[in-house]
Amino acid sequence: MSHPLLDKHRATLDGALNAIATRAYWSAYNEMPSPKTYGETAAEDGKKAFEAHLGKQFDLGQPGATGWAGGEQSPYGIDLNVQYPVCNYETLIAAGQQAMGGWQKVGADGRTGICLEILARLNQQSFELAHAVMMTTGQGWMMAFQAGSPHAQDRGLEAVAYAYREQSFVPAETTWDKPQGKNPPLVMKKHFEIVGHGVGVVVGCGTFPTWNTYPGLFAALSTGNAVIVKPHSNAILPAAITVRTIRAVLAENGIDPNLVTLCVADRAATQKLVTHKAVKSIDFTGGNVFGQWLIDNCRQARVYAELAGVNNIVIDSTDAYKPMLRNLAFTLSLYSGQMCTTSQAIFVPAGGIDTEDGHKSYDDVCADLARAVSGFLSKPEVALAVLGAMQSADTIKRIDMADSGTLGKVVLASTKLDNPEFPKAAVRTPVLLACDAADEHAYMEERFGPISFIVKVADTAAAIALSERIVSTHGALTAGIYSTKPEVIGAMTAATMRAKVALSINLTSGVFVNQSAAYSDYHGTGGNPAANASYADAAFVANRFVVVQRRYHI
Amino acid sequence: MSHPLLDKHRATLDGALNAIATRAYWSAYNEMPSPKTYGETAAEDGKKAFEAHLGKQFDLGQPGATGWAGGEQSPYGIDLNVQYPVCNYETLIAAGQQAMGGWQKVGADGRTGICLEILARLNQQSFELAHAVMMTTGQGWMMAFQAGSPHAQDRGLEAVAYAYREQSFVPAETTWDKPQGKNPPLVMKKHFEIVGHGVGVVVGCGTFPTWNTYPGLFAALSTGNAVIVKPHSNAILPAAITVRTIRAVLAENGIDPNLVTLCVADRAATQKLVTHKAVKSIDFTGGNVFGQWLIDNCRQARVYAELAGVNNIVIDSTDAYKPMLRNLAFTLSLYSGQMCTTSQAIFVPAGGIDTEDGHKSYDDVCADLARAVSGFLSKPEVALAVLGAMQSADTIKRIDMADSGTLGKVVLASTKLDNPEFPKAAVRTPVLLACDAADEHAYMEERFGPISFIVKVADTAAAIALSERIVSTHGALTAGIYSTKPEVIGAMTAATMRAKVALSINLTSGVFVNQSAAYSDYHGTGGNPAANASYADAAFVANRFVVVQRRYHI
Repeated sequence: MSHPLLDKHRATLDGALNAIATRAYWSAYNEMPSPKTYGETAAEDGKKAFEAHLGKQFDLGQPGATGWAGGEQSPYGIDLNVQYPVCNYETLIAAGQQAMGGWQKVGADGRTGICLEILARLNQQSFELAHAVMMTTGQGWMMAFQAGSPHAQDRGLEAVAYAYREQSFVPAETTWDKPQGKNPPLVMKKHFEIVGHGVGVVVGCGTFPTWNTYPGLFAALSTGNAVIVKPHSNAILPAAITVRTIRAVLAENGIDPNLVTLCVADRAATQKLVTHKAVKSIDFTGGNVFGQWLIDNCRQARVYAELAGVNNIVIDSTDAYKPMLRNLAFTLSLYSGQMCTTSQAIFVPAGGIDTEDGHKSYDDVCADLARAVSGFLSKPEVALAVLGAMQSADTIKRIDMADSGTLGKVVLASTKLDNPEFPKAAVRTPVLLACDAADEHAYMEERFGPISFIVKVADTAAAIALSERIVSTHGALTAGIYSTKPEVIGAMTAATMRAKVALSINLTSGVFVNQSAAYSDYHGTGGNPAANASYADAAFVANRFVVVQRRYHI
Repeated sequence: MSHPLLDKHRATLDGALNAIATRAYWSAYNEMPSPKTYGETAAEDGKKAFEAHLGKQFDLGQPGATGWAGGEQSPYGIDLNVQYPVCNYETLIAAGQQAMGGWQKVGADGRTGICLEILARLNQQSFELAHAVMMTTGQGWMMAFQAGSPHAQDRGLEAVAYAYREQSFVPAETTWDKPQGKNPPLVMKKHFEIVGHGVGVVVGCGTFPTWNTYPGLFAALSTGNAVIVKPHSNAILPAAITVRTIRAVLAENGIDPNLVTLCVADRAATQKLVTHKAVKSIDFTGGNVFGQWLIDNCRQARVYAELAGVNNIVIDSTDAYKPMLRNLAFTLSLYSGQMCTTSQAIFVPAGGIDTEDGHKSYDDVCADLARAVSGFLSKPEVALAVLGAMQSADTIKRIDMADSGTLGKVVLASTKLDNPEFPKAAVRTPVLLACDAADEHAYMEERFGPISFIVKVADTAAAIALSERIVSTHGALTAGIYSTKPEVIGAMTAATMRAKVALSINLTSGVFVNQSAAYSDYHGTGGNPAANASYADAAFVANRFVVVQRRYHI
């Protein structure tokens, strides 16, 4: 039982299936905002489409509407004033459950085809979505385009591909023919039906409202579940645009659009939503407090949570000192360190490090990294494009605290930059602190934002041991090592296997520790406290559906 | 990187992989205790091997031994008097963790090959294990042989096959080559390592100490984890024999045997074991009280739980009345209803049912089913072979209560049979009760043992609705329907898809609703309260390991 939309997008699906099997480079959606790919007028049209939302009510035609809410504050200081429908959560749940029957009947092929069509349509909206992401999160334009649109779509497609692969293993039917010696065999016909667990809730975050939402959204949806998207209160628009498109594609294909809805809700309403007995999966990206609350209280659901961590890098030695510093400077600066993958702790031996440029003391490394960051950000157009704007006032407060020197010696102070295009934007450069390994209170909790510590450790072995302990106890999405010595790289590799974190080794060129590429890099391992799931692997999809069989003699 | 034992058992693995893909009939291990398969002296040798354990200390060479414990009481009344090592649980955990490194290094191929060798060796011990299962659980001989040995081994192999398939999707390495327009591509080498989550604990049950233990044991083991087997206090011997064989095969292959250990522990020690932070998965079969305790308290682990349920059958109509009654009689009698899959509630319309033999009133059905059961058990040799013995005093108490008529009208009273071979065995025939649908307190909780209710419902539609509600709220592993009407079968099918339970339709010949065949029938769906996991599907294995990657420029 194929489906016209599966046939239409077969090449895309095959590409994704091949990519998750090989984990080689592949992408379905062009990460460059190229007119050749997206159309000559795409940039202009997308900007207009975004602007058309501003100051308006964003209608979705959802049931249970009780009023309107909004209030997103743009980190770039522009007025958004979009109002979104507030809908009774129980009505949304009931409507989603009601829609699941038709979604089940269309089968894995139909669900996959429709999800692929949704992704293709979202891809056509890449500019509109990029503006929405940029203006709600404070990401720079290029990052908002790439991470917010094609990369997010790739992560969504990756989840669809995993889900398709797992669902494909379940045969629709079989004939079971058991020999009985000299007697006639026992013969049964058996049918196997894939059924979604129930309603999935995807709780979005304020910094990556599409990239961190699409994996769970498409994993739950393509495996037969209804999905309620609960966006972060300050990044609703990208989710609303996404949900509207999904609902349109569902309706075009004879599926009740209430299968997917947007739930704009405060904390109290969200808590009622996620603890409802019909909610069977929750995807969450955000802080430890609410994440742990979800895990503790939503016992009726499987919770896929990406939480806080302390990403770290061990510097032992290098034969490319300046490229290393440049690479680190970019990592620490990108989106002002407001990525869940940004390195927070950089471990440097007290005795310094060997480089191709001679020995560098711990203080040299501190000074040189500070210089690398400030040098990289010295051109305003580069700085503004890379840094973006501060997503939240809390992050600015954390920067100010770091700047005050209470957490460690300030090696590089944060500075405030003016953005001529967006005069109200809060733009801050990274702050670098020096501290001792003993100052665990300073660097051993997540300090979200452009705040990093260059931690003085006794030696490389101590640094590796410290890294392992941090990952095991506090979690991390990324770890790095710089070393020219195979035995050191081997020791760090072994430590990351025990602590279960992805390792980047000697990054000195155009790949950065905070980047993870769909289909190739696992985002999170699911094995340390920073995340109990990974984008994406079989575990991310396999438990979102069950198989209901029936059998009879023939 | 293959492994000699994978090569040796490749045909077995391929057979299992094909079977889980097609879910057609297949088995790796002969369910008939045939001398041709098992050897001319296997029956005799196995019995002697079993008897050699009696009255002895069962040494396993495990670390942390503090003493000996035992005390299993055979339902057949024979003296067992086997003593098992009691080991400090923290020592076992630490030893398991220590052994995991070598187990990781041997890779998925090596782990799979070694698990296949273990299963082959357990298969050679089928008679010994069957006697141990029979004498600790009260199963009849043939059932103890089949369910305890080849069927359990098949379920273990099924888990190994699922685990192998999922692990096989993870490439060991890739070259990631990303075009950069006119610039040279970004090229990285990436390595992907499969790492077990940690220590797995498998908590066995008293009725199926191998069949319900092997799936979790082999799923956790083959995905790279250490495993601690915590057997039911009255069914230790089958687990001890299994663990000894596993440890021997591990040691023969250069793996630290402390990877797998037996933990004989009381409830308090078990609670400390399963809540230890190093324990990352728990497989449990048993009652709701301890099962729910595990789910509530073992937050550091993934809990795969098979709990209580209320299995049920809807009788609407039939064109094979006597075969239907015979089929039901066998189901209700097998192992005295002490199976987690035995039907407890049989729903019959108040207005009776149409059959090829004319209309049968509700009372007719009650009387005829009672007659079918007593007729089937009228030959002592059949009755003793099918019924086995009562596994626990609690079950006998439940039978006595049912017999007293407090739960419903006694349609067929339980009788006590003498077993000349085992004079001390407690043998009881099933009790059948008649009650009204309104008497929910009677039939709507699991009454483990040979206690079934023929529940009078308004009509078939009400019966189907009641079945759906029971499955959704109390859980069930099995459901059945008898009907000659496609629309009724369709309605029941739809209800079981919503409630997520496997459905057997019109079973009138040699397959019974309480049987599930490895590779073909999913045991539990994982979607209703009776079990949050299934034997076996991808979800049963995919979350037992993580992938730790490393990457570097080339």
